Amino acid sequence: MKKKILTISREFGSGGRTIAKEVADKLGFAYYDNELVTKIAEESGFDPEYVLKSGEEVKFSNPFLYNISINTRMVHSQLSAENQLFVTQFNIIKRLAEEESCVIVGRCSDYILRNRDDCLNVHIHAPMDFRADRIVRVYGENDISPKKRINDKDKKRKTYYEYYTDRTWGDSKNFHICLDSSVIGIENSIDFLINAMQIDY
Amino acid sequence: MKKKILTISREFGSGGRTIAKEVADKLGFAYYDNELVTKIAEESGFDPEYVLKSGEEVKFSNPFLYNISINTRMVHSQLSAENQLFVTQFNIIKRLAEEESCVIVGRCSDYILRNRDDCLNVHIHAPMDFRADRIVRVYGENDISPKKRINDKDKKRKTYYEYYTDRTWGDSKNFHICLDSSVIGIENSIDFLINAMQIDY
Repeated sequence: MKKKILTISREFGSGGRTIAKEVADKLGFAYYDNELVTKIAEESGFDPEYVLKSGEEVKFSNPFLYNISINTRMVHSQLSAENQLFVTQFNIIKRLAEEESCVIVGRCSDYILRNRDDCLNVHIHAPMDFRADRIVRVYGENDISPKKRINDKDKKRKTYYEYYTDRTWGDSKNFHICLDSSVIGIENSIDFLINAMQIDY
Repeated sequence: MKKKILTISREFGSGGRTIAKEVADKLGFAYYDNELVTKIAEESGFDPEYVLKSGEEVKFSNPFLYNISINTRMVHSQLSAENQLFVTQFNIIKRLAEEESCVIVGRCSDYILRNRDDCLNVHIHAPMDFRADRIVRVYGENDISPKKRINDKDKKRKTYYEYYTDRTWGDSKNFHICLDSSVIGIENSIDFLINAMQIDY
């Protein structure tokens, strides 16, 4: 197979990461999820803990600033560290896509690589109940209810994605394939995507 | 295969209808697109021409009323014929899904059948350039530019869908599978959906 890139955007708890990892393993592609954290930390000088926590999160210490920033794309000094991190991430993702066949999870990679013709952009989603059950099975219980954990995480990913891309999170237009993993199933989604990667697009 | 339903929502020119027809033929399923028009005309007493033209269109003679209606879901007397048509369509689609395995194109069928567990909801989309080329090949040239024809048709479908469902047109959440036919290809999309219909969901 010629060099190809697969990006996977996913709702929290949908199994998107599991699907991405399996597809990468089965195709023998490099896989970048938390692996990106190390690279970004090395190149940016940020602490890996900070990169992990902020890599898909825009922080707004003041809700008023949140709205201003979202609505006007105002670059506020409070955002400079996040913006710096995004630029480093942006450059690393672009370089990885140049170098080798790989699967990249999240971090606006569909947007960053939107002009490449060797890149398949995929979004994995599922209804709340399916995801709530799944995160308890996969990550265990904690003090916060599964639905609140999902809502918090989705909100962060949505805000991050929409802030940096000016696109609507979950809009099918931005992806070549969107799958509801609760109906299609994790294993079938893996098979689907492996087949899709064989297409001569 | 046990009884199953496939609904196909599609952007104009994306090839969604071609995909739907082929999947129905290959699976031996009943196919409802313009076939619905005859049934609706018979049951509603409306003229088939009117059903064909208004079956996916909400008409607003006054742009001010358009905004009020969209924003408040006000049922205005000017909409009564369309609403009546929608109710007939709604009942026919629900009944067809009860009766037999079938493929239904458009007409908010994903929304109407959203609570069935034997129904796979699919959305087919593609970028403007691909669709503009395709509609000229399939439907020929006319006085209106392909892009304007697409924008007009998409706008009507979006308005109709959002008016009757209170959902966002093209939001991946409302579908089990979304495919960009320009990258996946018409033939591969057909194969994908035939495989998906075999899943024991």
